[in-house]
Amino acid sequence: MKVKYNLICKDKNCMARHGTLETNYGTYETPMFMPVGTKATVKLLTPDELYDCNSGIILSNTYHLWLRPGPELIDKAGGLHKFMNYKGPILTDSGGFQVFSLAKPKDITEEGVHFKSHLDGSKLFLTPEESIRVQNLLDSDIAMSFDECPPFPVTHEYMEKSIERTLRWAERGKKVHSNPRQSLFGIVQGGEFEDLRKKSALETVKIGFDGYSIGGTSVGEDKETMYKMIDYSTKYLPEDKVRYLMGVGDPIDIIEGVIRGVDLFDCVLSTRIARHGNAFTRNGKINLRNLKFREDFTPIEEDCDCYACRNFTKGYIRHLITSDELLGGRLLSIHNTRFLIKLTEEIREAIKENRMLEYRDKFIEKYYANKK
Amino acid sequence: MKVKYNLICKDKNCMARHGTLETNYGTYETPMFMPVGTKATVKLLTPDELYDCNSGIILSNTYHLWLRPGPELIDKAGGLHKFMNYKGPILTDSGGFQVFSLAKPKDITEEGVHFKSHLDGSKLFLTPEESIRVQNLLDSDIAMSFDECPPFPVTHEYMEKSIERTLRWAERGKKVHSNPRQSLFGIVQGGEFEDLRKKSALETVKIGFDGYSIGGTSVGEDKETMYKMIDYSTKYLPEDKVRYLMGVGDPIDIIEGVIRGVDLFDCVLSTRIARHGNAFTRNGKINLRNLKFREDFTPIEEDCDCYACRNFTKGYIRHLITSDELLGGRLLSIHNTRFLIKLTEEIREAIKENRMLEYRDKFIEKYYANKK
Repeated sequence: MKVKYNLICKDKNCMARHGTLETNYGTYETPMFMPVGTKATVKLLTPDELYDCNSGIILSNTYHLWLRPGPELIDKAGGLHKFMNYKGPILTDSGGFQVFSLAKPKDITEEGVHFKSHLDGSKLFLTPEESIRVQNLLDSDIAMSFDECPPFPVTHEYMEKSIERTLRWAERGKKVHSNPRQSLFGIVQGGEFEDLRKKSALETVKIGFDGYSIGGTSVGEDKETMYKMIDYSTKYLPEDKVRYLMGVGDPIDIIEGVIRGVDLFDCVLSTRIARHGNAFTRNGKINLRNLKFREDFTPIEEDCDCYACRNFTKGYIRHLITSDELLGGRLLSIHNTRFLIKLTEEIREAIKENRMLEYRDKFIEKYYANKK
Repeated sequence: MKVKYNLICKDKNCMARHGTLETNYGTYETPMFMPVGTKATVKLLTPDELYDCNSGIILSNTYHLWLRPGPELIDKAGGLHKFMNYKGPILTDSGGFQVFSLAKPKDITEEGVHFKSHLDGSKLFLTPEESIRVQNLLDSDIAMSFDECPPFPVTHEYMEKSIERTLRWAERGKKVHSNPRQSLFGIVQGGEFEDLRKKSALETVKIGFDGYSIGGTSVGEDKETMYKMIDYSTKYLPEDKVRYLMGVGDPIDIIEGVIRGVDLFDCVLSTRIARHGNAFTRNGKINLRNLKFREDFTPIEEDCDCYACRNFTKGYIRHLITSDELLGGRLLSIHNTRFLIKLTEEIREAIKENRMLEYRDKFIEKYYANKK
């Protein structure tokens, strides 16, 4: 089935909205944070650990799976769900972001993007049709349109040409999309330019998709600019479709995104910083390598319900991290994933009670208290 | 409490014995395989995953914990059990093996061993007293005497002097051992020399320990020599004390050790080879990197009850391993640990029914069938 977004309520003081998303694997509440399983695995974690974090949709990357192990193999395995044994909804991106960020494109043409594999340098060519073909084979629940993701900043002139091409790519992708149980989302681009975000949003909606994403953030712009990019996009998106801010997963950014009307978020940050010894807490990000945690035999957060906090202490996790023991990164990945999911659970409650702005102010005050 | 070994029955066709070991954390059946948690963590796994493998005693390394995070810190945490949250018995080695294998001793004196830290080259001095002091602080359930572990081969003359010094070190260790809830084991050395193994065994027993280990195996000798070393040791050990063959964990070696009267085994092999993509199976060791597993969507072993086999396929694990995704090594570590523990469960049944030799022959035939 195609995903169906049901708006339950809006915060009367901002654009924040609470709803549900019906998927092939049940109905989930939004706003939602989606953990990232780049290569068909949320690094170090099992699906059971994700369920224990109360995960809903998870993400996987088309570019990486396209190169290795290849979509044909995953198709033979019965699709991505069976391959990785995740019994919940999966969203795949289009590969566009990785082509532009990781592989460095050799040449962007109307047809598609020529680039070199980041694995072995072999020449590759990704088109809207190929991206959709790969995602159809992966059999994710939500596929993304193939877009150009320009760096920040580019000129208004460049960005205008880029969004026009991205619109043509979106139409081409929609035309070849053929998986009846898979939804297809469109992507709003346009950088920091209000007129281009508006144009991109309205034209993308005109093509018609099952949900809409905001792309082109987290590409080097400052926070205020990112928030403006969101403002310029969400206000032109329909109320009855789900909205997804791509690649954003800092706690404050999730809150600010929600306030601007976003429903879905994803980011590798929570697990990447975990592997480097960092944990999100209500009192700001902490690095477990810090000597002050050496004799701290309390959990990362006293009131956290994650597996790591229920079973292990900061002192022990610090020992694991400083001794290069991978269980450390694994436990911190669990904590950070649960932290962001718990955050969205609280956000939903705040929206229901029209106190999202108040929630933000209190969260930020506590989060930065130690930095003052 | 001190561990108490209860002999239940012996296989009438060999020296294999089945018994129970009473510990601070309950009573466990032997023969038993003990997973190794070098730095207070069985690499990549949680205690819950070990329980799910039906683990009993696990091992931890005094040398590594002495250097990092230090026994005083673990003592402050409430001991090793609380520090790593393992709710079962823990055995710590003496540090001797690591000093000789990893750190390369600078100078062996009557007093102890001068050597350099493998971490930062700093000068260290480990004595029998210090080893016991550290293990007392770690508060493991079973501590090992500090011994010299000579390489293979050394001359009879060298080995004789070595076992005499090791006997003096064992006495010194016993004298300072002061943790009433911790057992202390003696170690039989003597290389491949029957007279020296006999002397070492009898003299160690004369000092009197709560259990006895066979050391000096897996130091470069061939299999037949290793089995002889075991033969030369176990026959001089008392029936009413548990016997532990140190550092041996190849499936065939466990079986051959059991046949020669050994009760306890440990080895890093099962988890180390896992991280390199290898899995134990009844049909021999397999490497999941092998192309033939690419489209194999069956578990590592159809009839295995481990978490990895219950949830994932060879094709998926191969993808994880070839993509450097650590979940692969984690899943294989679970499988290999469960494999060896399951092996000892079967061994106990075979002993009860006096068919240990038959069990060995059948196991070996199947294990090597693919190599013929």
